[in-house]
Amino acid sequence: MAEHLSQSELDYPFKLLEYLNGYRVSKVIFAACELGVFELLMRSPGAMSALQVAEALDASADGMERLLDALAGMEILQVETADGTALYNSTDVANTYLARGGAKSLHDMVAYHSQTIYPLWNNMADAVREGKNQNQKTFGIPPGEVFEAIYRSEEEMVKFMGLMNSSWNLDGQDVVTAFNLSCFQKIVDVGGCTGALARELARAYPSSSVTVFELPRVVEMARKHFPQENDTFAFHSGDFFHGDVPSADLYVLARILHDWSEEKCLTLLKKLYRACNPGGGVLLVEAMLLENHRGPIAAQLFSLNMLVQTDGREHPPSQYTNILKQSGFAHVQVCRTGKSYDAILAFK
Amino acid sequence: MAEHLSQSELDYPFKLLEYLNGYRVSKVIFAACELGVFELLMRSPGAMSALQVAEALDASADGMERLLDALAGMEILQVETADGTALYNSTDVANTYLARGGAKSLHDMVAYHSQTIYPLWNNMADAVREGKNQNQKTFGIPPGEVFEAIYRSEEEMVKFMGLMNSSWNLDGQDVVTAFNLSCFQKIVDVGGCTGALARELARAYPSSSVTVFELPRVVEMARKHFPQENDTFAFHSGDFFHGDVPSADLYVLARILHDWSEEKCLTLLKKLYRACNPGGGVLLVEAMLLENHRGPIAAQLFSLNMLVQTDGREHPPSQYTNILKQSGFAHVQVCRTGKSYDAILAFK
Repeated sequence: MAEHLSQSELDYPFKLLEYLNGYRVSKVIFAACELGVFELLMRSPGAMSALQVAEALDASADGMERLLDALAGMEILQVETADGTALYNSTDVANTYLARGGAKSLHDMVAYHSQTIYPLWNNMADAVREGKNQNQKTFGIPPGEVFEAIYRSEEEMVKFMGLMNSSWNLDGQDVVTAFNLSCFQKIVDVGGCTGALARELARAYPSSSVTVFELPRVVEMARKHFPQENDTFAFHSGDFFHGDVPSADLYVLARILHDWSEEKCLTLLKKLYRACNPGGGVLLVEAMLLENHRGPIAAQLFSLNMLVQTDGREHPPSQYTNILKQSGFAHVQVCRTGKSYDAILAFK
Repeated sequence: MAEHLSQSELDYPFKLLEYLNGYRVSKVIFAACELGVFELLMRSPGAMSALQVAEALDASADGMERLLDALAGMEILQVETADGTALYNSTDVANTYLARGGAKSLHDMVAYHSQTIYPLWNNMADAVREGKNQNQKTFGIPPGEVFEAIYRSEEEMVKFMGLMNSSWNLDGQDVVTAFNLSCFQKIVDVGGCTGALARELARAYPSSSVTVFELPRVVEMARKHFPQENDTFAFHSGDFFHGDVPSADLYVLARILHDWSEEKCLTLLKKLYRACNPGGGVLLVEAMLLENHRGPIAAQLFSLNMLVQTDGREHPPSQYTNILKQSGFAHVQVCRTGKSYDAILAFK
């Protein structure tokens, strides 16, 4: 999406038509993930025909051929024609990111996009009109407590946790090393979900202790569905709005503030400031908007996502700096990673 | 979507994440069209703040700011900041293609994408699994007669006709001039919908007579909702599967064959061959697949669209050539326009 929408679009709107087709591109990938195409091709000893893929996945040969062709057109798969039959092969990109189970697999992220966020975005015009999330219209869930909606069933909860897990498997290392955090002995990842980011913190700072502070039912699901051997971080059950938070040298708030109103963000940050050990700090991890309203497009799309699904929004660094200072934190430093998530560090 | 998904994606999957976000990009444009953003900004004498746009369109200021920012990030709108307030302006691209009413406006195409096709694609995995359209699951419409579904209400019918109308306003001139058709005196556009393509034919070939052959209810809606002054083409009511077609020197089948099974396509082409005047021909207009299964991605996405919505599919030129020859036509010529739709001409 970095290409310039130039005057040449006036001759013929190639880029605009690509934008209008964007949802189809997404759904090609989503459908292939849902059908298990990438695991099958990754494990196959050789290239497969559409008929072979369809038979293995209990799908129609005609539909599968069209899907595989579109994936080949997007260069997510490779295709060669032999004796009039198209034979499809996986690619390193598909094996790494789209097949289930790899260290950087986005498979769970895709599932959440496809099944939960795609339908929510069908009501985007109403979200903009009303200025509020569309959980009720999309899923029949009463508005109000956002995480009651997101965690409305164990299935939805595990799917959401899978999204966060994939996300930190991909971006965690970059965000935890955006600043050198080795000076912080006791690190608490507030709302740290499955522990995927805590795992990256523990890897990058092996002499620090890392704790995930989460709701009891999230901790239970994390242990049940997302455990890894040899993990060196701990879970600590609690509720960061209702109750005490453990003391720490560094609190990490990774994609937490963007879920909530400014008032709730201030309440949380003030609580962390009080609980923070002297000389400690807070690390915010968010997709940060530019101050000039011109991007990054991914952060702007996230901000609309927060509108349609939560009570929060994305912010530019100046806004995070403001609320950090209002909460008592100082010496605010901003690091843009150039990837999906950025980091802000501030000190007590 | 022309960019190569190269090995550099293995370092960080920028392009893949863009694909996963594609549906959000589409819906930003769709929501802005639905809310009337582009007409308002086109008519505004100066730049407007998000608050002003929101008040004029009866929307939330916060939601509108996020939407306008995303449009600015995509360079569909311009934004400047004055005294801390972001002010938004339209662009030539938005005025030309996204505001309602212009000669090349895609506004009606967007409405159909957003309200009908986006929900259908939510069931793409099932379409591939079952190998059939998802009208029943998406809209509760029994499968079977595809155009009973597409024309299930006057509102849906007019929306679909708006899609076709926008499409030919944009691409019509290119496809009717792909070949020099001035040798054909009597041209019949079979299933010519609103007459938008017939209008382009009549403009390009002023000494030919141009007739749109359509279902009576489509003709009625075309006259009611899509009339233009000084049109020189005529409507002729009928049903190309059930009844006679008027004789002609050239039949145009623009995005007709891709709706139907091969058997029905053959039935129709044979009927046209019989009715065709000696020395006459047929012009097929479709988004043609490459023979090597590698693109064009837009045609591959159309083919999946045909799966999820109709009984048809897109084809490569060899397949159209085959069925044309089986129907009796000869001297098949193929022209790729490099834009959305291509043309094939064949003679009796």
